[in-house]
Amino acid sequence: MIPKVTPKSKSISLYNRARMLVSCPDQPGIVAAVSRFLYEYGANIVQSDQYTMDPEGGLFFIRIEFDLEGLHERRDQLKADFAQVADKFQMQWSITRASRKKRLAIFVSKEDHALLELLWHWQSGDLDADIAMVISNHNDMRELVEPLGIPYYHIPVTSDTKAEAERQQMELVTGAQVDVVILARYMQIISPKFIEHYPNRIINIHHSFLPAFVGGKPYAQAYNRGVKIIGATAHYVTEELDGGPIIEQDVQRVSHRDNVEDLKRIGRHIERTVLARAVAWHVEDRVIVHQNKTVVFS
Amino acid sequence: MIPKVTPKSKSISLYNRARMLVSCPDQPGIVAAVSRFLYEYGANIVQSDQYTMDPEGGLFFIRIEFDLEGLHERRDQLKADFAQVADKFQMQWSITRASRKKRLAIFVSKEDHALLELLWHWQSGDLDADIAMVISNHNDMRELVEPLGIPYYHIPVTSDTKAEAERQQMELVTGAQVDVVILARYMQIISPKFIEHYPNRIINIHHSFLPAFVGGKPYAQAYNRGVKIIGATAHYVTEELDGGPIIEQDVQRVSHRDNVEDLKRIGRHIERTVLARAVAWHVEDRVIVHQNKTVVFS
Amino acid sequence: MIPKVTPKSKSISLYNRARMLVSCPDQPGIVAAVSRFLYEYGANIVQSDQYTMDPEGGLFFIRIEFDLEGLHERRDQLKADFAQVADKFQMQWSITRASRKKRLAIFVSKEDHALLELLWHWQSGDLDADIAMVISNHNDMRELVEPLGIPYYHIPVTSDTKAEAERQQMELVTGAQVDVVILARYMQIISPKFIEHYPNRIINIHHSFLPAFVGGKPYAQAYNRGVKIIGATAHYVTEELDGGPIIEQDVQRVSHRDNVEDLKRIGRHIERTVLARAVAWHVEDRVIVHQNKTVVFS
Amino acid sequence: MIPKVTPKSKSISLYNRARMLVSCPDQPGIVAAVSRFLYEYGANIVQSDQYTMDPEGGLFFIRIEFDLEGLHERRDQLKADFAQVADKFQMQWSITRASRKKRLAIFVSKEDHALLELLWHWQSGDLDADIAMVISNHNDMRELVEPLGIPYYHIPVTSDTKAEAERQQMELVTGAQVDVVILARYMQIISPKFIEHYPNRIINIHHSFLPAFVGGKPYAQAYNRGVKIIGATAHYVTEELDGGPIIEQDVQRVSHRDNVEDLKRIGRHIERTVLARAVAWHVEDRVIVHQNKTVVFS
Repeated sequence: MIPKVTPKSKSISLYNRARMLVSCPDQPGIVAAVSRFLYEYGANIVQSDQYTMDPEGGLFFIRIEFDLEGLHERRDQLKADFAQVADKFQMQWSITRASRKKRLAIFVSKEDHALLELLWHWQSGDLDADIAMVISNHNDMRELVEPLGIPYYHIPVTSDTKAEAERQQMELVTGAQVDVVILARYMQIISPKFIEHYPNRIINIHHSFLPAFVGGKPYAQAYNRGVKIIGATAHYVTEELDGGPIIEQDVQRVSHRDNVEDLKRIGRHIERTVLARAVAWHVEDRVIVHQNKTVVFS
Repeated sequence: MIPKVTPKSKSISLYNRARMLVSCPDQPGIVAAVSRFLYEYGANIVQSDQYTMDPEGGLFFIRIEFDLEGLHERRDQLKADFAQVADKFQMQWSITRASRKKRLAIFVSKEDHALLELLWHWQSGDLDADIAMVISNHNDMRELVEPLGIPYYHIPVTSDTKAEAERQQMELVTGAQVDVVILARYMQIISPKFIEHYPNRIINIHHSFLPAFVGGKPYAQAYNRGVKIIGATAHYVTEELDGGPIIEQDVQRVSHRDNVEDLKRIGRHIERTVLARAVAWHVEDRVIVHQNKTVVFS
Repeated sequence: MIPKVTPKSKSISLYNRARMLVSCPDQPGIVAAVSRFLYEYGANIVQSDQYTMDPEGGLFFIRIEFDLEGLHERRDQLKADFAQVADKFQMQWSITRASRKKRLAIFVSKEDHALLELLWHWQSGDLDADIAMVISNHNDMRELVEPLGIPYYHIPVTSDTKAEAERQQMELVTGAQVDVVILARYMQIISPKFIEHYPNRIINIHHSFLPAFVGGKPYAQAYNRGVKIIGATAHYVTEELDGGPIIEQDVQRVSHRDNVEDLKRIGRHIERTVLARAVAWHVEDRVIVHQNKTVVFS
Repeated sequence: MIPKVTPKSKSISLYNRARMLVSCPDQPGIVAAVSRFLYEYGANIVQSDQYTMDPEGGLFFIRIEFDLEGLHERRDQLKADFAQVADKFQMQWSITRASRKKRLAIFVSKEDHALLELLWHWQSGDLDADIAMVISNHNDMRELVEPLGIPYYHIPVTSDTKAEAERQQMELVTGAQVDVVILARYMQIISPKFIEHYPNRIINIHHSFLPAFVGGKPYAQAYNRGVKIIGATAHYVTEELDGGPIIEQDVQRVSHRDNVEDLKRIGRHIERTVLARAVAWHVEDRVIVHQNKTVVFS
């Protein structure tokens, strides 16, 4: 469909921009080898962040953004050549082009705030991704989405139709080469099968400050516990409900004056902000998952 | 013992200052009745905070600070007279003199930060209370405490001697008319018997953001979960471990760069600040407990 | 115009809800007199917040929300009767009906975030006001506003046409009985004449943490100073540029990594949140202005 | 004097630890050259942070922590060899040993909180530096300092004796090879001569959120402006009062309820925390100054 809205585009300086993510067992010489490789290729490093988990023998993580003339023509060769360096250090690695935007599928139910926030970030150019589609078990959001030129699919879900509904969802999502699925206050549980298909590529926003208040009605739980601070958590979905690697969290103060409806109202702002932040980091390849936790080079 | 250190005293304007705390079923006329009572007594209200839980039939809470000439001579009569107003509205209430400082017993183990913070607040006059004693299962803190003229009791605790140790603690505490017991990173569990004796009058600082990471080694738990924010919680001790009414909480951001030792180091600052805040509110009669939660008129 | 969008309405429990704001010289008996007055009228106080500036002779402020059966029929009499109480205490006071929503005029230029936030709050029912119109010196926002059934007026402004443009603005605004004007990143300076007409009823969001970085290009100023925290400030407009009473402020951390564009991007989130908060407080009669400062009963 | 208190020492793993700080014009190959240099030396990089100001031609900053066997014996040679790499890239650089602790002189007046916080951080091992002396224009703090084995010098200052007092201060400070002077709420202005001697090596804590409320009585200024947030700022002292490069800032919410004394009380907590943070970063060589701003690799 021809988009009626064209998000403000970022500077074309991202045309030759690439992002390298690496994890490997720590040992001397990694940075020397990688930076030498890039230098000899004629690449210019614009940002580099690294982290060594436990300096005396441990894991090493690095994220490098670099510019390379003729990136598009040379990238296959670049990867083939880097593979040799990578092997020496037993690296797990990826090199992606910044201009090759990630394709998002956003799942939503009845609450619109998280979706609206993502759409606004996308339109303003802050979220550098393609929104391939929005899928919902309700029809409410259609009029927010279609005018922007984004396909909207209403796939109702009942306990009887759950499996079939998910089959349709997966077909749409895989068929459109979606890279990452965003659950923007989507209220259905994702099946293990779907999760298997998108490991560390389904981002959910849970409306509590995990690991507190897992599961349903977390604001009511928070109200009953009488906490003085509430929060929201963006995480990758795993088979353990609300147990996957946390990408980002944020909080807000509350008091005895705030009943459950107030907590929800206050919480919405945290949810939408935290989800937008996490999604932006993911699409910019700033997140590495290790042992159910994340290293975020923000 | 003659104190070698005299905390800077607050203005003597607190001499005629009283604090009234009231809870009762909500109905029209409570504020009219209470404020009229005080007006006719010649009292001057300096601060008043109220809260109605659920306006259409619910609970009403109010805290009033007022000055009354001749408070000390008139207080018994004041209370007797107010009791009549209170009965009409089925109030639970208290009127305490601001100048009648609460007496604290601080329990500490090996970590000094929470204790030091309380001592500093006390010396500077910010914590308007008497520190009757410090009790510890170790001897390390003696030299921080005794030079300030505060009695220090070293009562070791092992699994065999636990009951006897607590018997000694209770004897010291009750014998000195202690109003509230502060567990300043005291690492022993308080027995139900002790809790019974001091309901909502034992304040503990738990080194996590409750209800996350209850129990032991919360920083290690937080590290394993990979949270991006850690916190500390001050609460009244009840029989349920780390389950009592929360008085105050605060948080701080952390990242993948912070290992368990870093989390402890960062956490200490939150713990000491949160505990000091909670203790100050308690001694100023700003906290009302209702159904395992607190209303805090801060 | 028939609105295509009806904001979700709040519970009709606000039908009999009134808000009383009072300031007067402090003396004993104010609360007794006011609460007695309301009690005898049969009103039920649902929330009350007060503040005495300087207990030993000073100013007293109180905000009371109460429910009164037959409020609409009785309000004129209520005000006439209360005037007698008010005179005794030399009160400045107001009693407004919660159901009588304030009418807003929102002025906007090219940045859409602050306006979008207000529209979203309004649609969700969080902002309990009527948006009478949106006025802009550009035409960009028309398509965001008119589909919601809100009148949009494009009034261009150049140095030559400034006075005439403002004349048109004032005509539209006064003609529609607008209560408060919101400058949602409106980039034109408001003339003294307009300010005179709407004292403490023009709310501006300034994109810095006042009083730092007054005037133009505050993010560039912040960048040059190398601050580690940026913020936004909502304030009533007075003749002194960015010098009026501050209603609300908030901040966000930044670092050397953030250039001016990043500061703007981060700042937008603070601006929209702070403005929405301040406007909500104003329309709920939670703000009292005193000596170029505000008392906010939030 | 023999110290009665020995700060808990950090792990001896810092014995072979070095820190390299580099700034230079950005160009391809810097990281490759530096990491190769270190690799060939047999050094193991444990942490590395870099920042390029403006990727298309600009400044490059990097901080590398590395371990090197035999660091102490080899360091002179290391520096001589690195100088050749540095010249190629026109680097400004330094390599310091982590075990060579920086020597601090703390200046204090009558407020003790900032000093106490530094002393506590030092005793607990969090502040990895030597406190060479405390200098004060009053005698109040002597009993807090001398028992810790730290020399205390009382040097009174009046307008007549200002120059002589500073001469004595400089003699003491330079005589003891002090690396950095900390003004811990020291209320005297530092002369240009002193600043010249310690460029970017005098850290002051100003009790406001700069650039707001420069100069005297910032809390009274803040109170008069009616800000809703106050803060504190740690910065290097330059000739422009409170105008030097900002190292760290933090804030806290306040309200109309807080008078000037309350703001001071709340502010003290921010001041001591911010100063301690800034000093720790400085002694760990985490701060680079560039054009009256700082790059902080925290």
